[in-house]
Amino acid sequence: MLYTRSKIDQFDKRFRTQFINSLTGFKSINLIGSKSKEGIENVAPFSQVIHVGAHPPLVGVLFRPGVVERNTLENIREIFYFTLNHITASNFIQGHQTSARYAKEVSEFKATGLKSQYIEDFPAPFIASSKIKVGLKFKEEVTLASNGTHLLVGEIILVDLPEEYLGNDGFIDLEKAGSLTCSGLDSYHKTTVVKRLPYAKVDKPIL
Amino acid sequence: MLYTRSKIDQFDKRFRTQFINSLTGFKSINLIGSKSKEGIENVAPFSQVIHVGAHPPLVGVLFRPGVVERNTLENIREIFYFTLNHITASNFIQGHQTSARYAKEVSEFKATGLKSQYIEDFPAPFIASSKIKVGLKFKEEVTLASNGTHLLVGEIILVDLPEEYLGNDGFIDLEKAGSLTCSGLDSYHKTTVVKRLPYAKVDKPIL
Repeated sequence: MLYTRSKIDQFDKRFRTQFINSLTGFKSINLIGSKSKEGIENVAPFSQVIHVGAHPPLVGVLFRPGVVERNTLENIREIFYFTLNHITASNFIQGHQTSARYAKEVSEFKATGLKSQYIEDFPAPFIASSKIKVGLKFKEEVTLASNGTHLLVGEIILVDLPEEYLGNDGFIDLEKAGSLTCSGLDSYHKTTVVKRLPYAKVDKPIL
Repeated sequence: MLYTRSKIDQFDKRFRTQFINSLTGFKSINLIGSKSKEGIENVAPFSQVIHVGAHPPLVGVLFRPGVVERNTLENIREIFYFTLNHITASNFIQGHQTSARYAKEVSEFKATGLKSQYIEDFPAPFIASSKIKVGLKFKEEVTLASNGTHLLVGEIILVDLPEEYLGNDGFIDLEKAGSLTCSGLDSYHKTTVVKRLPYAKVDKPIL
């Protein structure tokens, strides 16, 4: 079925949001932990997180102008540090609830029962129930002229994960770790590996 | 296990690339179809694709300076149109092979056996075996100062997908469509839904 742009523009707003959010495919789903300069801990779920580079290790997060995302963005602009925590089957319901429009002075940790955790002297809170935790420092922010969204780039400062999920080649077994993936605005999925493929070369025949 | 930045910086280069690429979580995996101004069709796999906005419908793709990605980026800069095509279990092996460093004058369609498809008068090729196909037009490009990668924003012009996967609320059932997700550099996974959750509200108790 062909959906032209004029047909898409005629969709009801909620329908169109769900439709367009589905089109990029399965997404990562992380809880971002942050803290205001007044010390109020914040958590919010983000599915627009991308790998930006490995040398130096960089991660990008896209922020829309919504209240929930703005709280996190303002916190990062204030204290420069934030954390990325994989959502699993054990915390996705609490994690999803942190997307509600809590006021900035309300900590989503208290509101949802998620527990914060501090690792060494890293200034932002991690989510205790997440297995894979990444601590980041603000590096760069760009605003997209197209729609005013903000791409924030963070540099990885520390990583905490159970050693059993780390392979000899650096591959982290996210499936064993129970990390979920999401689709659209609200659908959470677990995964089953189909195959890992070797590095592709021009002169090597297809498997 | 805690991995500090100094420990990460001491990792072997391949190990570190695989490690850092795993940290953002499960990713979408799409084949981008493009065409040079000489008419040579190009395909390459991309896992750094994000939803940028729904009104207007925008998608972001991060390009690194590698040969494979540069071919696609140059094509988009030349003809302004490109396509996003979900990878499934039926085409992920050919899709992965398109990441080999073919010269710009070689079409990865011919090299891998993937078939191109044209929809109406859209100027860039779609991947015939993909179920979910999105046609985009170049909208904006920003270069990140952090590491010289390029974020290209495309505006959605058309969408082609089997009607049976589209729900009453605009949700596209990617699992039924067989879209895969990937992790690290080379691992492909299918999904099983855990749950869809309702829109989160402050005064609504957690499920």
